[in-house]
Amino acid sequence: MGQTSTAARQRRSRTDILNTRERGHVIAGLKTMLNPKVTAVVGVSTSNPFSPGNVIFRKLCFENGLKTYPINPKGGTVEGVKVYKSITEAPDDIELAVISIPARFVPGVLEECGRKKIRSVIVVSGGFSETGESGRSLQHEIVEIANQYNITMVGPNCIGVFVPDRVDTFFLPSERVARPRYGNVAIVSQSGGWLVERLEEFADRDVGIAAAVSIGNSAQTTVSDFVRFFGEDDNVRVILAYIEGFGPGEGRRFVEECARVARKKPIVVLKGGQSEAGHRATQSHTSSLAGNGAVVSAAFRQFGVIEAMDEDEVMAYSKVFSFGPRPMKGKRVGTLTVSGGHGVIASDEAAYYGLEFPPFKEEDQEAMRSVMTPAYQGIASFRNPIDLTGSASDIDYERVLDKMLALDYIDAALLLLLPYAPGISLQIGARVANVAKRHKKTVVAYVPYLDKYEVIIRGFELNGIPCGDTIEEAVQMLNGIRKWSEYLQRVGAL
Amino acid sequence: MGQTSTAARQRRSRTDILNTRERGHVIAGLKTMLNPKVTAVVGVSTSNPFSPGNVIFRKLCFENGLKTYPINPKGGTVEGVKVYKSITEAPDDIELAVISIPARFVPGVLEECGRKKIRSVIVVSGGFSETGESGRSLQHEIVEIANQYNITMVGPNCIGVFVPDRVDTFFLPSERVARPRYGNVAIVSQSGGWLVERLEEFADRDVGIAAAVSIGNSAQTTVSDFVRFFGEDDNVRVILAYIEGFGPGEGRRFVEECARVARKKPIVVLKGGQSEAGHRATQSHTSSLAGNGAVVSAAFRQFGVIEAMDEDEVMAYSKVFSFGPRPMKGKRVGTLTVSGGHGVIASDEAAYYGLEFPPFKEEDQEAMRSVMTPAYQGIASFRNPIDLTGSASDIDYERVLDKMLALDYIDAALLLLLPYAPGISLQIGARVANVAKRHKKTVVAYVPYLDKYEVIIRGFELNGIPCGDTIEEAVQMLNGIRKWSEYLQRVGAL
Repeated sequence: MGQTSTAARQRRSRTDILNTRERGHVIAGLKTMLNPKVTAVVGVSTSNPFSPGNVIFRKLCFENGLKTYPINPKGGTVEGVKVYKSITEAPDDIELAVISIPARFVPGVLEECGRKKIRSVIVVSGGFSETGESGRSLQHEIVEIANQYNITMVGPNCIGVFVPDRVDTFFLPSERVARPRYGNVAIVSQSGGWLVERLEEFADRDVGIAAAVSIGNSAQTTVSDFVRFFGEDDNVRVILAYIEGFGPGEGRRFVEECARVARKKPIVVLKGGQSEAGHRATQSHTSSLAGNGAVVSAAFRQFGVIEAMDEDEVMAYSKVFSFGPRPMKGKRVGTLTVSGGHGVIASDEAAYYGLEFPPFKEEDQEAMRSVMTPAYQGIASFRNPIDLTGSASDIDYERVLDKMLALDYIDAALLLLLPYAPGISLQIGARVANVAKRHKKTVVAYVPYLDKYEVIIRGFELNGIPCGDTIEEAVQMLNGIRKWSEYLQRVGAL
Repeated sequence: MGQTSTAARQRRSRTDILNTRERGHVIAGLKTMLNPKVTAVVGVSTSNPFSPGNVIFRKLCFENGLKTYPINPKGGTVEGVKVYKSITEAPDDIELAVISIPARFVPGVLEECGRKKIRSVIVVSGGFSETGESGRSLQHEIVEIANQYNITMVGPNCIGVFVPDRVDTFFLPSERVARPRYGNVAIVSQSGGWLVERLEEFADRDVGIAAAVSIGNSAQTTVSDFVRFFGEDDNVRVILAYIEGFGPGEGRRFVEECARVARKKPIVVLKGGQSEAGHRATQSHTSSLAGNGAVVSAAFRQFGVIEAMDEDEVMAYSKVFSFGPRPMKGKRVGTLTVSGGHGVIASDEAAYYGLEFPPFKEEDQEAMRSVMTPAYQGIASFRNPIDLTGSASDIDYERVLDKMLALDYIDAALLLLLPYAPGISLQIGARVANVAKRHKKTVVAYVPYLDKYEVIIRGFELNGIPCGDTIEEAVQMLNGIRKWSEYLQRVGAL
């Protein structure tokens, strides 16, 4: 075990640890980590099949179908597979090693990985900087080793990485946690628990992910590295991060990285610990430098980071950006509903988010009224929101929308669908989406996310219109697009 | 058709229409309306089986199993049942008449109902005050007739009433809208669309309702009448209302009614049109006097009305109060989690709502640590929120909670459950709920509302602990209890 003096390295701050060349190397190593061909799991148990190492081994080997070597000093077999006594003894083709052993043994194993030229390592083990002074010293030691051997390391104190159908080191029973399909949202999180819940929720809402990474103490690779990495990945349309705080100097590097990447794709961040009470709680969790809430929010805005205020906004923004929506030229929204109450609630929500529902000109109101079924022209209201009433049918909705989207003082459309209205059929989604395609405007819809409305929702979504599960979510979706559009305008990228 | 002069009555405001004696009569009539034995539906079609009248007829007759007379001037049969040509011609035992015919014919039919001594009438038909001056005049006319004959009238321009397994006049295809089970939440709404969505959502979350009433233009019976009515109904634990505005003088009557009823049970209100844009939208919908948003909110607070700010709060407050929760003596919450990130997010949410997570005393932290499984004592954190970490198991959670609930500086407990942790079993809900029963403290839990966690959720909820579907919802639940508790304290009812 390569014990080296740690006194000097403890005086260096984390950002000093890597220079630009090394940082570039780290990025390259992530590519292997998220798409490895051969893996090793250090810390399988021959007696306890439910130890984290064994759960990870079974996932990599049997679920992901990767060639995987289990490692335990005692040797033997696990699930019928030969156990190697050490990394050194194992074959030479390992690309990713996952380490799940007591903290004090990690530096030695990492040295072995380095000598074996393994490029990517995930340290699952806890017992590092989150536990106090001696843990901090141990953490500095493993970072030194990783840098010395050009190892890209994620962790320690994390659950690692998950890419659908490719690699999964999350040591959680599969029957307890749903996994989403492959898609274009990349997620990075300082909290494993938070990340796991997002997987569950994304699966439930059918939002696909490109990768999910739990960075734990982020001793070497940090959230900024992942922003850069996913920024260059053309499969990724939106980057989502849960952050509790930054190491010294890391905050600035993060926003600068974001400012660059946000010109190409939106970055959504939920910042834990923005309140004073929340900040105190981060101290028991990740011991991050959370910073002043208002200052952090202002920096996010300035550098193009879209801040989500809660889990609902996280879902709204992630989902809408996964559709690669058209930016909005302004914040003027035309709203079309079949229930007056829904229009009122949407108006309140839009006002909260600073979106505008401009009144329609008299002649435009008449033009829209004229295409409505004559029997209902008298009871429908064509202000903004437009209320076609519960008597409206698909064709009314289509025709009025077509007129509304043509108005030059409308930047986007908000469609509130109440599938309970007898005249609204399950075809409405596809029908309306095809009308929307004729216009170059941003359109989002609200349809409750229920199995029985799946035909409507798929009609919309397969035709490029994202559906919010609540009126508020649909409004938040528009708000996300508007925030990103404003940044693009400001930096001249629109 | 009893045409009477309307000039004089148009000069009277709506609140003048009923004196106290008449108002008492209206209340009595609601009892019949929500539990009728014999009903009539005026406006069934012999040619269109999907007309609103026919849908209502089939529901009352076949779903609710009520003796129901279909009425149409042409006679004939509908669904094999004899159609009477008028209310006058129908048998004398009608308790509730539902009218779904063009507006201009409503006064005549209402006169017939009056002469027949029918005590409760729902006017589904639109075409009254929401359409302008002549509609307003027609509306005054039907109110006069109703008052003259002591008829309790709901509507016009509404979808009527729904009581599970008893009465259902909502003319919506049953396959499109789920209906919740019978329970103790009473809902009153100025928007039929909003109400229908709540039914859907309440069914989805398994929150039972005592009654749902769409009051439409509330020409005679108003939201205040229903607050009084449900206030006296011991089956109702919480009253939920969606209100866009009040007629002249009605706002004051409403808050005064609430102030009285809120001493017995909480009243939750979502006020549509609180923003300026939302207020404008109410003008096309219900033409209500919405009032200044801030003034309305202040009045609600003063008179004990719990204002929900959005649909999420509506669900959180309705659900938590349906459990008849213990009031909170203060706003000091102890929080117990197995994920640090969840603790951070809960802290931020609680700070937003003004709830406090007081730090635990050093000796109390040690007492809680000492009951934890020894191997994990070192990694768990016993500040507030307590983070037992993903290594904790059921017994740790139970023992620590037992200590925490005994602390005299904790008014309530917030349990954040992450059922993904391998040591947490599906028994956790019932186990923890039984620990909570030993203490006289308010307890709410957070468990994602998914089928696979049903055993956990039922374990909690059948033992009296409500589960929020998100961390935010669980925090909102505590906030609702605290708001109500503060009112009770203020009026000396706690």
